[in-house]
Amino acid sequence: MRDADFELPSTEHLALSLDGWVLTVTLNRPKARNAMSFAMVEELVAVFDAIQDSAQIRAVVLRGAGGHFCAGGDVKDMAKVRMLPAPDELGGPDDAMATSNRKFGTMLSIIEAAPQAVIAVVEGAAMGGGFGLACVADVTLIRADAKLRLPETSLGIVPAQIAPFIVRRIGLTQARRLAVTGGRLDGDQAKVLGIAHESYADAEALEAGLAATLADIRRCAPGAVALTKDLVLSALSENLEVLLDRAARDFAIQIRSPEGLEGTMAFVEKREPEWARSDA
Amino acid sequence: MRDADFELPSTEHLALSLDGWVLTVTLNRPKARNAMSFAMVEELVAVFDAIQDSAQIRAVVLRGAGGHFCAGGDVKDMAKVRMLPAPDELGGPDDAMATSNRKFGTMLSIIEAAPQAVIAVVEGAAMGGGFGLACVADVTLIRADAKLRLPETSLGIVPAQIAPFIVRRIGLTQARRLAVTGGRLDGDQAKVLGIAHESYADAEALEAGLAATLADIRRCAPGAVALTKDLVLSALSENLEVLLDRAARDFAIQIRSPEGLEGTMAFVEKREPEWARSDA
Amino acid sequence: MRDADFELPSTEHLALSLDGWVLTVTLNRPKARNAMSFAMVEELVAVFDAIQDSAQIRAVVLRGAGGHFCAGGDVKDMAKVRMLPAPDELGGPDDAMATSNRKFGTMLSIIEAAPQAVIAVVEGAAMGGGFGLACVADVTLIRADAKLRLPETSLGIVPAQIAPFIVRRIGLTQARRLAVTGGRLDGDQAKVLGIAHESYADAEALEAGLAATLADIRRCAPGAVALTKDLVLSALSENLEVLLDRAARDFAIQIRSPEGLEGTMAFVEKREPEWARSDA
Repeated sequence: MRDADFELPSTEHLALSLDGWVLTVTLNRPKARNAMSFAMVEELVAVFDAIQDSAQIRAVVLRGAGGHFCAGGDVKDMAKVRMLPAPDELGGPDDAMATSNRKFGTMLSIIEAAPQAVIAVVEGAAMGGGFGLACVADVTLIRADAKLRLPETSLGIVPAQIAPFIVRRIGLTQARRLAVTGGRLDGDQAKVLGIAHESYADAEALEAGLAATLADIRRCAPGAVALTKDLVLSALSENLEVLLDRAARDFAIQIRSPEGLEGTMAFVEKREPEWARSDA
Repeated sequence: MRDADFELPSTEHLALSLDGWVLTVTLNRPKARNAMSFAMVEELVAVFDAIQDSAQIRAVVLRGAGGHFCAGGDVKDMAKVRMLPAPDELGGPDDAMATSNRKFGTMLSIIEAAPQAVIAVVEGAAMGGGFGLACVADVTLIRADAKLRLPETSLGIVPAQIAPFIVRRIGLTQARRLAVTGGRLDGDQAKVLGIAHESYADAEALEAGLAATLADIRRCAPGAVALTKDLVLSALSENLEVLLDRAARDFAIQIRSPEGLEGTMAFVEKREPEWARSDA
Repeated sequence: MRDADFELPSTEHLALSLDGWVLTVTLNRPKARNAMSFAMVEELVAVFDAIQDSAQIRAVVLRGAGGHFCAGGDVKDMAKVRMLPAPDELGGPDDAMATSNRKFGTMLSIIEAAPQAVIAVVEGAAMGGGFGLACVADVTLIRADAKLRLPETSLGIVPAQIAPFIVRRIGLTQARRLAVTGGRLDGDQAKVLGIAHESYADAEALEAGLAATLADIRRCAPGAVALTKDLVLSALSENLEVLLDRAARDFAIQIRSPEGLEGTMAFVEKREPEWARSDA
């Protein structure tokens, strides 16, 4: 076995479990239905930073402990910030209410852009921040009886960092409706809208779906997946012709890379490339 | 009862009806199947302008009188413009054909960006401009037997102001098909494409759907809804990181606003916030 | 009969067949399941260039010979480029691997923006480049048993020119999943995602769907269709208000064009406009 090309941080609110090339990250505050505390946000960022350059970890599975995905932001953290002395400028750089909120968006951006394939496994509650987290995975698998919601506006606040990612996920039209009605959905509805990719009737089917997704990912070369993800994400903001120029360059480099050579050789030799072997 | 914080214009082609925090705007030219005359466009703009800053009106219901939503642009208005002397520059600033067309797009932009929740209730014909109007509501509820169509190209003209809003509504792929085939759809098809959010078999189910939507909207704080709508709409054009910065600021300001305080307090006291009370 | 206002190039890998205002372009390398050779890319570009300004050709049907649409890039062409001496700069302007890849994207852009209505008829395999081609038609009709796939990442390479068009076709969320899992879909799944517009159980139903689509297109004035397509495509990248200004100008010009006059007159005279007559 090779030496690890990454070093995981120690975490208090996340349980980390490594199985070959798959890292499972479990939100682990089951008593609080895995409410997203500031500390948990920091830990998620630290984990994704730690594996940013790892070629060994090819997939990250995000899920929650105790039957729930994530019940939203942590009310206690919020209350503590409320007690701080008023900032010089509301929402300005010394306003901890703004800066702590912004960090949540940074975390969503980092997960969205991870070079690995990211799979969210959603059971039970996925509210507020948990709803947002479900929106940034490459593949989101959900239980039909999951309960999604955007409770913010009913509390007089806004799903501020989440709203832009919902639009990226499901488009303007469905996002507008959720914005004005509070976004209450079950797993099947989440699939129809495109928040999730597949909805499953029970836990067994959900785990089988996860295994099948991982088997699909194993067949794909990790460097090629990272490049493709980057092109796909760039298509949202970059000019088409500029992006096609970059894509041609990426193509020419990748086809001559070790992955490109191994893939072509394996095809000619009618064997599986090394990244696709189940014992890899 | 508080004094009204808005003053509605008097209107000839629209019937206005106020029920608490809900303003119903009925296109009211039933003999012309509510064809969108220039005067009706002006009146719609005037109504949305009048309530722009109102905190009392939290939802606008758009519908048509006499069993139809809107049969498109008014042919007589168009004919009058055709009879005017030719402009110096075709399509230029003194060409009434261009300026009257542009006003329709301005109206769609204003309705799309209204701070209130906007609900379109679509029955019967929704053609041309009526099709466009159905595309700018936050929630569009439709009768399964409604008849949508883009008749413009079959008349040798173009759905000029409407096409961009169709792309915003249902994306490039479905918009392209409608553009080359004339866009004939019933209510169920309109729901599948995302023009409408829900399709109903009959009038009773449609009214129940409207009531349920209004009940969802009542639970959400109006200022928070307006902020969230603004973030959602901005996500189409604004750079993600810039938008997340703005969202953090919005969050910090909103959470300390009267709505934010009332919402938090109500949550702690296990009561409904004042905006959610059915007698409000 | 009028003189033709276009001259088709002679083609080796494409079969061209003209039926009135409909040009059928058949990818014609059935032994290679119509793999997209460099020569075929050049020929497709030449055909669309040749009809760019034709008012007579109003629709292009793209399909494959021998029961398959297109099995992807041609492996032999790729192998030849691999044997060339290394370029000065990997992916640079003298790297044939990059420039030949880029040409495929140029072809997709040209087909996407064609002024004619473009219909793709997809049977059998639609892989890699064939998958991309299915993503740039205005209307894509598919057999339920068609087999779509993005095999690139499993070969260690990237769907470089294709990925941006997949995002334009089906949005970020579904594109991300396909990017990390290899994009294996049948025709019904392709319809659900929006790659295709309609899925058909057998060949007969597919041909009937094609005939119905062409009948819809015939009713729409060709110049008006071209203008509408242009507005729809521009909506992806252009600022909304700027686009609405342009649309108003287009409207004013088109309504006074021969098509606009004929369409209005036919409407008043309760007859079909000349472009809609089945003997036209």
